[in-house]
Amino acid sequence: MKLSMLGEDALVAALTRGLPAGRDVRVGAGDDCAVIGGRRDVWWRLLKTDAVVEGVHFLPTEKPARVGWKALCRAISDIAAMGGIPEHALVTIAICAEWDERWVRGLYEGLRRAARKFGVSIVGGETSRSPGTAFVSVALAGRVERVRCLTRSGGKPGDFLYVTGQLGGSRAAKHLDFTPRLAEARWLAENFRPHAMMDISDGLAADLPRLAAASRCGFELWEGKVPCTPGCATAAALGDGEDFELLFAAPPRIARSLDREWPLRFRKLPLTRIGVLTRRGGGKPISTRGHDHFA
Amino acid sequence: MKLSMLGEDALVAALTRGLPAGRDVRVGAGDDCAVIGGRRDVWWRLLKTDAVVEGVHFLPTEKPARVGWKALCRAISDIAAMGGIPEHALVTIAICAEWDERWVRGLYEGLRRAARKFGVSIVGGETSRSPGTAFVSVALAGRVERVRCLTRSGGKPGDFLYVTGQLGGSRAAKHLDFTPRLAEARWLAENFRPHAMMDISDGLAADLPRLAAASRCGFELWEGKVPCTPGCATAAALGDGEDFELLFAAPPRIARSLDREWPLRFRKLPLTRIGVLTRRGGGKPISTRGHDHFA
Repeated sequence: MKLSMLGEDALVAALTRGLPAGRDVRVGAGDDCAVIGGRRDVWWRLLKTDAVVEGVHFLPTEKPARVGWKALCRAISDIAAMGGIPEHALVTIAICAEWDERWVRGLYEGLRRAARKFGVSIVGGETSRSPGTAFVSVALAGRVERVRCLTRSGGKPGDFLYVTGQLGGSRAAKHLDFTPRLAEARWLAENFRPHAMMDISDGLAADLPRLAAASRCGFELWEGKVPCTPGCATAAALGDGEDFELLFAAPPRIARSLDREWPLRFRKLPLTRIGVLTRRGGGKPISTRGHDHFA
Repeated sequence: MKLSMLGEDALVAALTRGLPAGRDVRVGAGDDCAVIGGRRDVWWRLLKTDAVVEGVHFLPTEKPARVGWKALCRAISDIAAMGGIPEHALVTIAICAEWDERWVRGLYEGLRRAARKFGVSIVGGETSRSPGTAFVSVALAGRVERVRCLTRSGGKPGDFLYVTGQLGGSRAAKHLDFTPRLAEARWLAENFRPHAMMDISDGLAADLPRLAAASRCGFELWEGKVPCTPGCATAAALGDGEDFELLFAAPPRIARSLDREWPLRFRKLPLTRIGVLTRRGGGKPISTRGHDHFA
């Protein structure tokens, strides 16, 4: 079957079934990051790779520094979504030999800028020729305290669902300049320990069902409450993707103090309750579909 | 300047100058792996990424399982070259949506086979659409005891240079089925601690000068001694690349016992002395050029 027919989630499910995994693998394929460590270790290690592809995630006419920024910040956003601290990045580039070196230098300028801003060391990488399409893949290692590690799978029926920021319109505007919610995610992990968290990369309509499924819950999304980027309709906020905002599930007992403390700590970034987790099979479907990489 | 004019080594040197790096980065860009850890830690962490690109490292007509094997084994070879133990891999794929899912399943079959054989856990990855060229990138994390970590930079004038196996002809034949020299490299690290080691991926003519330069040495290569794959001339053995054999520098005091013990431990894989490290500026140039990814 063609990949475009099968769809991304079905493909990933088929590929990741029964992968070889050692006893130190706490979370394998299927969450924002892999989590490695002993059951009683204080710190667990986080591993993530992510790629940006010419013609899919950026155009060859974009400023290369913005492409570099995006390539690293996508992976930082995934480490943040686990409540973690990003540490060491490796960069793999495949690019046409006829491209100008200035493009690669520009790319590294963006990578360096993001690395400095978020405390990441760039420790290596690989360059290769590509006969056509240009690719930039970033591998990022980080760490998180065992007791603060936030996965997609810890949500419980009755948890409120929250998103940071505003959703939609990213592909047309900010997707190359977004700020990963690292400070916000660490603050949540340190102070509130949500039950489950992830970042929104394929749109709320694709990602919320993933969080709910990983938590063996259903969900009820209050579509009218979803915070939309000015100029965006709700369908765009649900389906556009590349928002890189946080989506998390927090139990009612912490929701009240969270609602009070968030605006004191993060004045400029809204936090919005957008629904609840329900029992499995409960809730109702979303009106829009999210982004599928192969559709 | 076009990348094809600049060349790979000059590009990498320009890009990696002054990268942001934390205090725990023992070895950054420029060696086979990045090395992370405290100065007195017992274990150091190794990080590596490596990519295979359609039309450069494999053809779309190849069996995908062989491509998957190669993609993971390339990175295992780099961990081995540091004297290390590979542990956790992440796989990033970008592929045309019109390709058949069976290709990706086949790719994963090869990845799983290599992972099982060499004790690696596949802990995640990412799939993305590519508008053209297919691309498979592997990130691999591993570990090595601090006292056994072998870099490119520890060679000293007077060290003998050794290679495992036979060189040349790989691109035409075995490059998709090679065996990374993991057992051999660990045995060397545990029993003989060579001064410097790397794997040969771009051909001895490109890689030996890199090891010598990292060690601030010159070198004398005995071209007549270079072990050639049957049917290969010396020029091919020096220049073809994709050998994934080990190249290392060992002081004369251990060379005699190494020469005696190697064939007892590894009956089927030859080990050959091919030259010496000299003072910087000493030695003589190689008659052939190695592989440059952008040439």
